[in-house]
Amino acid sequence: MPAVRDQVIAALAEARHTGWDGLLAAQRAYLDDFWERADVELEGDTELQQAVRFALFHTLQSGARAEQRAIAAKGLTGPGYDGHTFWDTERFVLPVLTYTAPDAARDALRWRHATLDLARERAKQLGLEGAAFPWRTIRGQECSGYWPAGTAAFHVGANIADAVARYHAATDDDAFDREVGLELLVETARLWRSLGHHDPQGRFRIDGVTGPDEYSAIADNNVYTNLLAQLNLRAAADAVARHPRHAAELGADFEEAATWRDAARDMVIPWDEMLGVHPQSEGFTNHQVWDFEHTSPGQYPLLLHFPYFDLYRKQVVKQADLVLALHVRGDAFTGEEKARDFEYYERMTVRDSSLSACTQAVIAAEVGHLELAYDYFAEAAFMDLRDLEHNTRDGLHIASLAGAWIAAVSGFGGMRDHNGELTFAPRLPARLERLAFRLLFRGRRLKVDVTKQDATYTLLDGPPLRLGHHGTAITVSKNEPVTEAIPPGVERPAPSQPPGREPTRRALDST
Amino acid sequence: MPAVRDQVIAALAEARHTGWDGLLAAQRAYLDDFWERADVELEGDTELQQAVRFALFHTLQSGARAEQRAIAAKGLTGPGYDGHTFWDTERFVLPVLTYTAPDAARDALRWRHATLDLARERAKQLGLEGAAFPWRTIRGQECSGYWPAGTAAFHVGANIADAVARYHAATDDDAFDREVGLELLVETARLWRSLGHHDPQGRFRIDGVTGPDEYSAIADNNVYTNLLAQLNLRAAADAVARHPRHAAELGADFEEAATWRDAARDMVIPWDEMLGVHPQSEGFTNHQVWDFEHTSPGQYPLLLHFPYFDLYRKQVVKQADLVLALHVRGDAFTGEEKARDFEYYERMTVRDSSLSACTQAVIAAEVGHLELAYDYFAEAAFMDLRDLEHNTRDGLHIASLAGAWIAAVSGFGGMRDHNGELTFAPRLPARLERLAFRLLFRGRRLKVDVTKQDATYTLLDGPPLRLGHHGTAITVSKNEPVTEAIPPGVERPAPSQPPGREPTRRALDST
Repeated sequence: MPAVRDQVIAALAEARHTGWDGLLAAQRAYLDDFWERADVELEGDTELQQAVRFALFHTLQSGARAEQRAIAAKGLTGPGYDGHTFWDTERFVLPVLTYTAPDAARDALRWRHATLDLARERAKQLGLEGAAFPWRTIRGQECSGYWPAGTAAFHVGANIADAVARYHAATDDDAFDREVGLELLVETARLWRSLGHHDPQGRFRIDGVTGPDEYSAIADNNVYTNLLAQLNLRAAADAVARHPRHAAELGADFEEAATWRDAARDMVIPWDEMLGVHPQSEGFTNHQVWDFEHTSPGQYPLLLHFPYFDLYRKQVVKQADLVLALHVRGDAFTGEEKARDFEYYERMTVRDSSLSACTQAVIAAEVGHLELAYDYFAEAAFMDLRDLEHNTRDGLHIASLAGAWIAAVSGFGGMRDHNGELTFAPRLPARLERLAFRLLFRGRRLKVDVTKQDATYTLLDGPPLRLGHHGTAITVSKNEPVTEAIPPGVERPAPSQPPGREPTRRALDST
Repeated sequence: MPAVRDQVIAALAEARHTGWDGLLAAQRAYLDDFWERADVELEGDTELQQAVRFALFHTLQSGARAEQRAIAAKGLTGPGYDGHTFWDTERFVLPVLTYTAPDAARDALRWRHATLDLARERAKQLGLEGAAFPWRTIRGQECSGYWPAGTAAFHVGANIADAVARYHAATDDDAFDREVGLELLVETARLWRSLGHHDPQGRFRIDGVTGPDEYSAIADNNVYTNLLAQLNLRAAADAVARHPRHAAELGADFEEAATWRDAARDMVIPWDEMLGVHPQSEGFTNHQVWDFEHTSPGQYPLLLHFPYFDLYRKQVVKQADLVLALHVRGDAFTGEEKARDFEYYERMTVRDSSLSACTQAVIAAEVGHLELAYDYFAEAAFMDLRDLEHNTRDGLHIASLAGAWIAAVSGFGGMRDHNGELTFAPRLPARLERLAFRLLFRGRRLKVDVTKQDATYTLLDGPPLRLGHHGTAITVSKNEPVTEAIPPGVERPAPSQPPGREPTRRALDST
């Protein structure tokens, strides 16, 4: 607290010295620079254009000056969640900041790094190796009292590892990689290695954990968790290979890294042969499907009207879980699997959480449901401007707002960054004439300009960059924009949602 | 409370009228009669003989005057568990009372019946049909605040149904069957029918419930639960067939009963093909086996030293669960399955509960581990006399004491009562010269006298009775004892227990 007070006193003194005009000019310059590298432009939907900029502004606002303190679920906009930070910071907010304000992403991860001792202590309490990061916290301690939906959600650590790997791949920030990223990756990998085990058939299983969907708990081999753990284990092994001497200081060597690669290779990914879809967790698709027909509109959100005993044991999904895996580990699925999985989970996803629409937008767009994707995109973007969950007075849903960027860039822009490669697969819904966005990647500024017919990739500065466009490798150089045609999409019948839980369809003339 | 006060006043007035000698004589006559029909005699182990009589006396004491109030876990002997009653009354205490003091068993079930409205209300709260009986209670309300180990343990209801069916089969008490049993069976069957569901392959699944073992929770298709639910569903359908008019008053008809039989027939009983054993619940045998080698003696009971998160996700068993199914639904397993299952679970059962040793004794005896059975028998019988769990000051472990009778009669006597048939398969351990026990069955008094060589069945009064002896049908008539040779047992290698959790081996000369 004295440090914060000193910082405030210094900031006030500096502000008085700078004066109003100076402050205004500095602020303007900062934001002009931000919009120059980060703006998302939509043509054809003025309202949504404003909403996306509102969302992006608040995402920046939540993180730009966090300065190695946690980015809370509500940012600094309200008292909701008691100021706690959750996994959604790394999952939804940091990917946006990584490509638009990377220093803020770095600082947020440095904050996680600063809490490593507490996370190691927590792992030890639980009889585990490495670090177990908290479900909800202010300064690093676990503040959730309900372990089935808190401590058991070990995917928290893999989301941090994923954010570390993404930040490093997008920035080539080797100092961070060595000083911060390595240790975060090593300690989270150690957690997975001790949490899971090899069964007699040599499969690596992670049993008794909770995935992102809060209407399930304590299940075996949650696909999202296992795929993120796999990424985590491999990223840690790669980091040890990059920094063997620093790894040695953490007691990590190539032998330990080899055990991580083994576990990653042997990771169990459940598959329902009969239905031809991935069960969210082992056995999930055998459960009774929630009786949506007899659930009235007034009974949503379900958690306020039904006991968890009932929610946990049935097929009903609060927020994207398997579908989130389709996005962030899209490299682990075929296109056909994604389409089938999306359609399956769409029927039972009720979106009683704001952490769902943006992910559904991304996968809906990828598998060809562009109009549905557009509706989800709008839901994420308007979450607070229209107070869709009736609780904006408690503060903004920062992760959902970040999700508006994700829906635009990863949804209609088709941006992916698996294994450090930057690829796009843009395709616009009927109601958008044009989508343009900018982002930073390895010291370069890139602009992507999408119309119904084609996409133009412009490198605004930096050395030539290799990209993917709908599966084709292209290279862009400064001042030499590359325009590529958008191939025709796949036609699929529209999936259905639980009755009454369809996203709001925006009228074409809503502007 | 006024009723209790009136009862006390009346009892005191009557006692003063009767006088000391009269009271003593009445008490003596009552107990003489009890021992005459219920005594268990052991030759070769005086200490254990005393312990078994102590156990039987306290089992009677807990229930004989409960008079339609609950039989608490501690009886009336102490404040442990706050005076609450649990499922173990029906599971362990009532089988003993059914064959030794059936009126007490009847009254205990009448008490459950008196709480049906509360159990129906609870089911409704949970979105279920029928009646959901509480995990722990004094007068019928659920008093457990931790639902994964309370409400989710729905097997409570099936244990009540099992006790109802057993009492009726052993007494032919048709008035009870019609007035009390029928409704208990119907309402518990309705619970199972609504709790479970048919999957696309037509299998009836009961997901997300907790079985007897308190080191697991919220699992799918717990074998014990499913087999008891199957028994419950069939018993209810049979009761509707016996009393169609009374069933109609409960809104139950043959169509509804048919849906119960369907569910019972289609019940999922998981099987691990590779290991050739039954998983306690679906997926259980895939879990990591608890690290017993690195668990020190001071870390038992595990629940005081490890988080439930860890216990729930690993193969470690607090108390007989699958092995309890091998006993009470022994008709659903082959002999070879029982032997393999027992050996498998023996390796991971830590007996951090007093509700385990007696069941392990019964199955150890059945599958041929007679010396091990003897040690478990002694553990159940000496639970309080030797304060084995260091908490006898809180009251006696009534269910474990009842378990001493079960270990003797169902263990070394091999008594079973599946589907209303009374069968025996007696076989003595090295340290017992003789075992004799008496029991009531359909208005008859039966005495069974077992030596190493043979067993003699004597009908003390009542019409001829058909029995089973080691798989052979025999008929006993009054004053015509039947003596049958005991066939040689199967030799099997002794199973192992978690290090340090072996039962105490009693020295042969401990008398």
